[in-house]
Amino acid sequence: MAAKIILDCDPGHDDAVALLLAWGNPEVELLAVTTVAGNQTLEKVTRNALSVARVAGITGVPFAAGADRPLLREVQVADGVHGESGLDGPVLPEPTIELDARHGVDLIIDTVMAHEPGTVTLVPTGALTNIALAARKEPRIVERVKEVVLMGGGVHEGNWSPVAEFNIVVDPEAAHIVFSAGWKVVMIGLDVTHRALATRAVRDRVLALGTGPARFVDELMDFFTQAYEDNQGFDAPPVHDPCAVAYVIDPSLVTTVNAPIDVETQGRLTTGMTVVDLRSPAPADCPTWAGRDLDADRFWDLVIDALERIGEPAA
Amino acid sequence: MAAKIILDCDPGHDDAVALLLAWGNPEVELLAVTTVAGNQTLEKVTRNALSVARVAGITGVPFAAGADRPLLREVQVADGVHGESGLDGPVLPEPTIELDARHGVDLIIDTVMAHEPGTVTLVPTGALTNIALAARKEPRIVERVKEVVLMGGGVHEGNWSPVAEFNIVVDPEAAHIVFSAGWKVVMIGLDVTHRALATRAVRDRVLALGTGPARFVDELMDFFTQAYEDNQGFDAPPVHDPCAVAYVIDPSLVTTVNAPIDVETQGRLTTGMTVVDLRSPAPADCPTWAGRDLDADRFWDLVIDALERIGEPAA
Amino acid sequence: MAAKIILDCDPGHDDAVALLLAWGNPEVELLAVTTVAGNQTLEKVTRNALSVARVAGITGVPFAAGADRPLLREVQVADGVHGESGLDGPVLPEPTIELDARHGVDLIIDTVMAHEPGTVTLVPTGALTNIALAARKEPRIVERVKEVVLMGGGVHEGNWSPVAEFNIVVDPEAAHIVFSAGWKVVMIGLDVTHRALATRAVRDRVLALGTGPARFVDELMDFFTQAYEDNQGFDAPPVHDPCAVAYVIDPSLVTTVNAPIDVETQGRLTTGMTVVDLRSPAPADCPTWAGRDLDADRFWDLVIDALERIGEPAA
Amino acid sequence: MAAKIILDCDPGHDDAVALLLAWGNPEVELLAVTTVAGNQTLEKVTRNALSVARVAGITGVPFAAGADRPLLREVQVADGVHGESGLDGPVLPEPTIELDARHGVDLIIDTVMAHEPGTVTLVPTGALTNIALAARKEPRIVERVKEVVLMGGGVHEGNWSPVAEFNIVVDPEAAHIVFSAGWKVVMIGLDVTHRALATRAVRDRVLALGTGPARFVDELMDFFTQAYEDNQGFDAPPVHDPCAVAYVIDPSLVTTVNAPIDVETQGRLTTGMTVVDLRSPAPADCPTWAGRDLDADRFWDLVIDALERIGEPAA
Repeated sequence: MAAKIILDCDPGHDDAVALLLAWGNPEVELLAVTTVAGNQTLEKVTRNALSVARVAGITGVPFAAGADRPLLREVQVADGVHGESGLDGPVLPEPTIELDARHGVDLIIDTVMAHEPGTVTLVPTGALTNIALAARKEPRIVERVKEVVLMGGGVHEGNWSPVAEFNIVVDPEAAHIVFSAGWKVVMIGLDVTHRALATRAVRDRVLALGTGPARFVDELMDFFTQAYEDNQGFDAPPVHDPCAVAYVIDPSLVTTVNAPIDVETQGRLTTGMTVVDLRSPAPADCPTWAGRDLDADRFWDLVIDALERIGEPAA
Repeated sequence: MAAKIILDCDPGHDDAVALLLAWGNPEVELLAVTTVAGNQTLEKVTRNALSVARVAGITGVPFAAGADRPLLREVQVADGVHGESGLDGPVLPEPTIELDARHGVDLIIDTVMAHEPGTVTLVPTGALTNIALAARKEPRIVERVKEVVLMGGGVHEGNWSPVAEFNIVVDPEAAHIVFSAGWKVVMIGLDVTHRALATRAVRDRVLALGTGPARFVDELMDFFTQAYEDNQGFDAPPVHDPCAVAYVIDPSLVTTVNAPIDVETQGRLTTGMTVVDLRSPAPADCPTWAGRDLDADRFWDLVIDALERIGEPAA
Repeated sequence: MAAKIILDCDPGHDDAVALLLAWGNPEVELLAVTTVAGNQTLEKVTRNALSVARVAGITGVPFAAGADRPLLREVQVADGVHGESGLDGPVLPEPTIELDARHGVDLIIDTVMAHEPGTVTLVPTGALTNIALAARKEPRIVERVKEVVLMGGGVHEGNWSPVAEFNIVVDPEAAHIVFSAGWKVVMIGLDVTHRALATRAVRDRVLALGTGPARFVDELMDFFTQAYEDNQGFDAPPVHDPCAVAYVIDPSLVTTVNAPIDVETQGRLTTGMTVVDLRSPAPADCPTWAGRDLDADRFWDLVIDALERIGEPAA
Repeated sequence: MAAKIILDCDPGHDDAVALLLAWGNPEVELLAVTTVAGNQTLEKVTRNALSVARVAGITGVPFAAGADRPLLREVQVADGVHGESGLDGPVLPEPTIELDARHGVDLIIDTVMAHEPGTVTLVPTGALTNIALAARKEPRIVERVKEVVLMGGGVHEGNWSPVAEFNIVVDPEAAHIVFSAGWKVVMIGLDVTHRALATRAVRDRVLALGTGPARFVDELMDFFTQAYEDNQGFDAPPVHDPCAVAYVIDPSLVTTVNAPIDVETQGRLTTGMTVVDLRSPAPADCPTWAGRDLDADRFWDLVIDALERIGEPAA
């Protein structure tokens, strides 16, 4: 049976690929898409999500806008990585679907409460503001959700600081809420996603598909490649967010370790760090897991496969 | 025209008096009552609010339960001051009205958005969790609300720490959100409320009314007097929360100063402190005001008057 | 018997007056003078101390330079208040006495250890770096010192932040060490020193003395008056540091309260605040005292009297 | 020419081995030994240092006691790892040499200032309190010291917390001072020292030497093995401190990386973490280096060789 997921994202180049993977892969049932300020402003990432939906031909899935800023801190966007629009590179088509009238937080809550306990997986690929707000507004979702598989953080790698990753840095208080809520959390962090590189070989496979969505992905990767080379010295860009979706599809793609994880919120140097305690085996009831490595080949197979299945959607 | 208010409270002995004042005074139109964990658990303070509504004969006002815990921190209750029930002393009658189906945060948002801009005053007398969540979930309320008149904090007085007051200590991050949102905030803090003492003379005036609600207040004050004597060495207890309602009714009761106010969230000793900058005149657009003193006699006149008007409600 | 003191200072206009008071008043025996970076760099304040010594005709007292920066934080000077030299206004005479070869911290330790227990009072009027280092290097001084009477901090007033005073802000970690060491500490803070205003009337009394040191003080006050008007909106400048010396001479000049005091070192808004717990009577063994008010007339009488006794020192 | 070092230590089982290595190896000239509170109280570790000196037959080297507590924080000792004496296991012989009269901090300063610039290496193997105090008391040592090769911290490993090591946790403020002073610092942290395991094979080589000092080391390792098994689940104990001495003898034993390093002092979860920025190549003038790996075989060869050279000292 396909895994029911809610994708909470801030497209973002890699969020777009995550959305395509979630839509194209038959093992995933996309229940809802919510957006959150992060890679760009809420307005921009929400528009981007709808544009990607059109590219992918997504229908029948509610999209809702969520929080327009972090719980406590000021908005900071990653325009150096994602450009002025948040999705620089391709021409973005005018959206054809309309936003759900509900707030993203309510769409998450309603969707979780409308399904059987233990059946809905939350897949946040941006700042954790919406998820934290949902858990505070409707605490019953914490027991009801199957698991939270999030892109963010890292065990031994950082990008926005020596020891912290962007999604967590943007809203560390929300991340603290999510990591310590008690539900199962699988952290797909930089140790995993820095293996998901869109190399020339990968991009050639994408281009060979010859479809509109494939060309769209290629144009995203063009911009993303340059941005990661300029900003972080990568030869090929790490495509973070679809790794979380890939884990939901096939957990065997990612090596994980069960360990206590919490988020630093008060450090002078370390705010936004996901602190993973690897000193000894986790206690029996420890609900947090950290991804440590990725089978990159099989990961890209999944992405290519999803694009193939999406094919050429009707305009 | 009566001031339209939403009372966000955690009854609580003094919250109960605030509710009676808001209901009994003709200058106040009570649009909604929401509850928040603080003096006791959400479940208890919500039940207490409904019991007080029955005592006062409140009808036609929606009551809704809000956040069951602070944004980031663990629940801490003031059972030393308010007892096991949160409203120890009198026998609490079984509620006769039902809770609104909405979450307290949504009731706040819906109520503010349903009224004309600049017409609704928020009067929080507990932790600021609901108000902060509402501002984050629907940022448009920040411009639409007339003002926030809150009981909490202090300029030069503390109770839960040398420099911090309970309502702010319980959820300092929420308080930071509320104080820095940009709307007008009037802080009715301990410098004001420590003048609102329920002395023997005040209590005699209450008792002389001879009504059920007056007896209810007297029984609350019995417990509250003892609790404040035991816990904080007061001869007569400060009845904090109705001071905020009284300010809405008649701002001339409270001396205020316009000054920048923010909340310390990271101190080793000062977390929860409302930091008021009195060093120089406030900038022209400074939206925060700190209460400094109270005309206690006229304050109690208002409370007695409200009880008189409430009279003996139909059971 | 005269009180034996070590003056640890950063001249500084008001430090200069403190030095004159300590030297001119017969109730004080000045054992040593040490300097610390603060109002200006160590080099400048040390040179200033020696110049003031020449103005006052101080002989037979060892002067030593101490710490050139705070324990943890970067140097920040108060050149807006004290000018480029740290003692702007008068022409500073070339020093005639030489610095002691020892480090200021060692001079403090050696002096305390060379005198009977309970006989030496430390009077810091700058950042507490030297005192903290001395307490860490030779912990036995903590029991041996009679008391620490320091200018710094405040109960309800701040100058460098809404709630913090310059001497403490400059090195809050050192201040934390000093306030929590266990010795008796009398905090002569802004609540006291903001009463020690060098008004026109005060300055006329000084000028009427007609001596070189009096003219020197007047020229200091000329600059200081302008600086405080420009920076903090004072009509007449508060002459902080001699208040600590005056307390040593006659404690009845200052109203004090026995209360726990500690220093905030980690606040977002409150770092450097002296947190005084006034909620209930201090525990029996509480060693910290906070000054609350000053008898300004008698304070200035002491200063004038000291200048009179100093008279016209031999060049 | 032998490297001139000052060993600043808190013996401690592995400090004892560090002292033996420094004394026995001909490439090291031991100028002075200073002690600091850490593994045990200052009194105990100082006594232990003198006992080890007798075991090793050390003569002609000044030993001085330094700080008896961290700069700001309370003393915390590692008695779970080092026992009640700080050197549990062997019978500790009565010391035969006397302590230098100077404070450890002054012995460090005097020794550095008495030698040519760029010739003295500081080798701290305990908390960095003495080194920080020396740098603050005599800032000129920062330029004069050749380098600081310290045992402490880690890149990706922690022991006293998920991300922090004991020596740094004990006095993070001192560590911050040392890492940010500007001198060259080589951090020999847990990533290195967790390779220096006293395995059965290593211990057999030690025992085979048949000397008193070798037996002493073996008895230390007996206790240490059990302590590390009980406390941290190690099969064989990591012998941290001699790794720093070994690096001085032969830097090729340790893989290092040039990278900015600072110490977290304010974290909720991360205080005491050495934050190493590995995201990009270090700037040209970056003075901090992090050890990443150890050639354990050659390390133990050095230790065995030193014990062999020490042989059987005259009683």
